[in-house]
Amino acid sequence: MARETRIEDVVAGAVRLFAREGFDGASMREIAKESGVSKPGLYYHFADKDALLFHICRDSIARVLDACSRAAAVAETPEHRLRAVIAEHFAFFLAHPDHLVVLNRERRRLGEAHRVEIGGLERHYLDLIRGILRDGRDAGRFRVLNPTVAAFTVLSVLNGLDAWYHADGPLAPEDVRAQITIHLIDGLTAKTGDPP
Amino acid sequence: MARETRIEDVVAGAVRLFAREGFDGASMREIAKESGVSKPGLYYHFADKDALLFHICRDSIARVLDACSRAAAVAETPEHRLRAVIAEHFAFFLAHPDHLVVLNRERRRLGEAHRVEIGGLERHYLDLIRGILRDGRDAGRFRVLNPTVAAFTVLSVLNGLDAWYHADGPLAPEDVRAQITIHLIDGLTAKTGDPP
Repeated sequence: MARETRIEDVVAGAVRLFAREGFDGASMREIAKESGVSKPGLYYHFADKDALLFHICRDSIARVLDACSRAAAVAETPEHRLRAVIAEHFAFFLAHPDHLVVLNRERRRLGEAHRVEIGGLERHYLDLIRGILRDGRDAGRFRVLNPTVAAFTVLSVLNGLDAWYHADGPLAPEDVRAQITIHLIDGLTAKTGDPP
Repeated sequence: MARETRIEDVVAGAVRLFAREGFDGASMREIAKESGVSKPGLYYHFADKDALLFHICRDSIARVLDACSRAAAVAETPEHRLRAVIAEHFAFFLAHPDHLVVLNRERRRLGEAHRVEIGGLERHYLDLIRGILRDGRDAGRFRVLNPTVAAFTVLSVLNGLDAWYHADGPLAPEDVRAQITIHLIDGLTAKTGDPP
């Protein structure tokens, strides 16, 4: 008797294939092949590609949000909370780059209901970062003119990583994290500088 | 006799449609309709959708690169050059948001040869920004650990704009430009701050 199809195998194969070929470029047949599972085994877990893409997107954003929320909760100052969010997001990206590639590039292919649900989770993530920036401003620590704009700027840098950074390339992860931190935190806490 | 089909009309319609529906979601028939031109008029200018997408992508990146290069060339210090690049990129985005949406989201749909050519132009843009960051570091003005990482960080913020900023929304362009400048310049020029 064939072994049971594990949902982890299906998801791992689908993430690889969606990241490499795009959502439109991958069929359920190819996902089954990439995952090393049977088509019935695939369909047992996911009714269609949309359900699979939704699972991946929700898993990605929920895990980033969870890790960042926990790390921020135990940090003492807004600077440390923001630093913790950047570090956790970057760590998740290093460990699961394809998850964030799929979330960032393919989420627009989701059906309406699923897109709304992912949007809700991303709103929570935005709110977490915006809250930290607002607290830092209110404490007189961050030069934040507009917490929403600042939060989207932070998210742009974090979500932009998958477009250019590859852990097997020439740039050391530590350099990347440090340089990003300079941009995203030190500008806010700078004591001097020209008026923007 | 029908008036001549103008390439500007074709491009304007295609940009709107690609930005709204995505490259895969737009047919040549729909592009002709959106542009208010005949199908023969459309095909007179562009053999297929790939040629049209390439034209839009090349036009977008070439115009941004040209505006930023000119502005940077007449600025005196690395700070002023970087400030000029940010201002010109942002101004292009405000004037032509759909051009950058199409460039950022749909360029992966280009055929191989076209994708390589767009990649070359983007490399020039990266080189412009990286050169400014390197000059600033060498002059002791910027805290740049790695010019490549810093340049990609700047580009992530600029290219990320289309994902969240809409000129007809509640956020004033001036606030956005000022907040982005705080992140992208003041962190580099900060005299103090924790080590990254």
